[in-house]
Amino acid sequence: MANYTAFTAEHAVDYIKKLTESELSSVFTPNAELSAYEFGDGNLNLVFRVTDQHNNSVILKQALPYARCVGESWPLSLDRARIEADVLINHGSLCPEHTVAILHHNAELALTVLEDLGHLQILRGAQINAEQFPKLASHVAQYLSRTGFYNSDFYLSADDKKAKVSQFINPDLCKITEDLFFTDPYIEHERNHFPAELNSSVQHIRNNNALKLAAAKLKARFLSCPQTLLHGDMHSGSIFVDNNTTKMIDPEFGFFGPVGFDIGSFMGNLLLNYCAQNGRIAELAKRRHYQTHLLTCLQDCYSQFEEQWLNLASNETTDVSFANRAFTEDYLKSVLHDAIGYCGAELIRRTIGLAHVADIDGIENEQARLAVQQQTLVLGEQLMLNATSCENKDEFFTLLISLLN
Amino acid sequence: MANYTAFTAEHAVDYIKKLTESELSSVFTPNAELSAYEFGDGNLNLVFRVTDQHNNSVILKQALPYARCVGESWPLSLDRARIEADVLINHGSLCPEHTVAILHHNAELALTVLEDLGHLQILRGAQINAEQFPKLASHVAQYLSRTGFYNSDFYLSADDKKAKVSQFINPDLCKITEDLFFTDPYIEHERNHFPAELNSSVQHIRNNNALKLAAAKLKARFLSCPQTLLHGDMHSGSIFVDNNTTKMIDPEFGFFGPVGFDIGSFMGNLLLNYCAQNGRIAELAKRRHYQTHLLTCLQDCYSQFEEQWLNLASNETTDVSFANRAFTEDYLKSVLHDAIGYCGAELIRRTIGLAHVADIDGIENEQARLAVQQQTLVLGEQLMLNATSCENKDEFFTLLISLLN
Repeated sequence: MANYTAFTAEHAVDYIKKLTESELSSVFTPNAELSAYEFGDGNLNLVFRVTDQHNNSVILKQALPYARCVGESWPLSLDRARIEADVLINHGSLCPEHTVAILHHNAELALTVLEDLGHLQILRGAQINAEQFPKLASHVAQYLSRTGFYNSDFYLSADDKKAKVSQFINPDLCKITEDLFFTDPYIEHERNHFPAELNSSVQHIRNNNALKLAAAKLKARFLSCPQTLLHGDMHSGSIFVDNNTTKMIDPEFGFFGPVGFDIGSFMGNLLLNYCAQNGRIAELAKRRHYQTHLLTCLQDCYSQFEEQWLNLASNETTDVSFANRAFTEDYLKSVLHDAIGYCGAELIRRTIGLAHVADIDGIENEQARLAVQQQTLVLGEQLMLNATSCENKDEFFTLLISLLN
Repeated sequence: MANYTAFTAEHAVDYIKKLTESELSSVFTPNAELSAYEFGDGNLNLVFRVTDQHNNSVILKQALPYARCVGESWPLSLDRARIEADVLINHGSLCPEHTVAILHHNAELALTVLEDLGHLQILRGAQINAEQFPKLASHVAQYLSRTGFYNSDFYLSADDKKAKVSQFINPDLCKITEDLFFTDPYIEHERNHFPAELNSSVQHIRNNNALKLAAAKLKARFLSCPQTLLHGDMHSGSIFVDNNTTKMIDPEFGFFGPVGFDIGSFMGNLLLNYCAQNGRIAELAKRRHYQTHLLTCLQDCYSQFEEQWLNLASNETTDVSFANRAFTEDYLKSVLHDAIGYCGAELIRRTIGLAHVADIDGIENEQARLAVQQQTLVLGEQLMLNATSCENKDEFFTLLISLLN
């Protein structure tokens, strides 16, 4: 990375200009008058929009050699830009409908040029405003079942799978999850933050040995269960949407891990928004209506994910040992257990860990916000504790509804 | 590997001669008069003993680019010699008492020079002769608990673990196990071989959906559960012994896999010998005596393995999430389930798959041999089917005794 330099907007314009006659010729003409601005709200990268005089545009994303939110104190390998590009290529080939298109990658500069999805909304912002997206559930289900299945032992040869596991070894970004998701919330750590009013709830969590055991087991599987190539960061800020379109972005946390992690994270973010609406939508009927939509979205997504995996397994399994309905059902039961557990862990870590969500932190009324945080902690705890007692998705949905009422 | 050439005895002498003034100066003097002969009985390698006029000696082991037993039709990467050397270095640093010492490695020639253990016996031959080794159980327990624990998530940093997982990706040798251990016995395959008299037992196995499900689950964990750096081939032919010494050799199948695989394979080989003695030792009291020794060896080994892992976990766990007795016990319960399952699978595949054991195949009386083979099939099947119903090692031992009576 000897030639690495962090870009300014001018760098971005110059760089894109050179690609207008090659990889970006379908977006820009050679005489394009380009301008650029940086608008990244993430913590790890610079993100530029580069636009011409006809409003054609691309996104130039460049990895920074440290985590921006914690200053330069948490160094991160620039190799994650290579991993993100490789995940986008892999997932893009398996599910182009729901993966942002990658137009160019430069490993030395740790930068990637992507299609501009600026005409879409980021799901988190839209859900904060209680917007509904009728196709979200089925699109996410399709993305996760296709990318999950085709990178699993059901489909890949053992040879190819081992090579891919090695290709996507991602220690720096995994460490962020290992620490922030599974470790910090359950111990005293300076990276945690939460209001003093939550102290007793947090103590309750840290004194709950069964819960800490559940967290440790989820962490152990995150570390040593390379079932498939995950997106690795499936929160509502990684999803662009409108009524007809759903696109996943930012898979720089991608690695081979447990299938249930991505869908658990996604469900966790739906539930964070569900709880947040208790502090956002004052009118009961309106709130119930939107929360019912969120719950339906979660149920539809999980049901379709499972159904599509079963279908793929019936038709596309290459390993004779796994071409067996009973095996697939057993496998999916363990995916369900993982998904419920990771969903619960997401609720807890987004409430008391380092990285919160705007759904909750943006609630202006402090008492309302605290009530939501209490709810996410209890919900997360109960999901983690009861995950493995759910025999099937319907028992999970029943559990969830009982916890939300 | 441009300079690779398969060695003759002359090559071996010339090669060792050049090392007498450097890496092998502690074994040979520069004026050593060396001679060599090849005596490998394995299927994948050439093995030479190189000896001087004072009877000092070393072993020179060279990987062949194909599996010898199936001609040149099953090509194997010579990289396995690098993996074997790396496993010996890793395990040798963690448990030098029970790992053969590596003196030199040449990656290009895929060869390794090892201490000569010719003064010891290979366990399989000794157990065929009903010999007893009072320290075998505790030595194997020590080897597996130390190498297992110190390469697991209990001890390694996530960073270091991921790097090691990548270092030990071993597709060619793993594929042999994936096919021969978990796939072939449960389908019709030309690699299987067994006498026609076993046809109905084999059909019974192939019609047993619960058993095939168990085999598929064990295979899935073999593929996607990198808990620790395994030896990978812990059968009785990989262990040198005398009354005071136990040394593991030949870890070329090493890779990061489920902890239970190695100890399950070892227990499977004890039980293969146990059953074989029904066709070998005519005198009942003598046979019972030796079989009781084997069973005690199995129980002692498993008990000490578990106890030592618990002790290591109490004292040496580096990850705060896993420094928890309940977590360790839960982890070891799943290791037990795996170990019982792999043990059962070893019994079946050594009876009807490609690679048999001399313990059984060497029984001269055909009816006696067939009876033993029937027994190993039923025992293997019952262990695989009941593995996960054992709550702890004592329930496993009870199950085992009930199946052997």
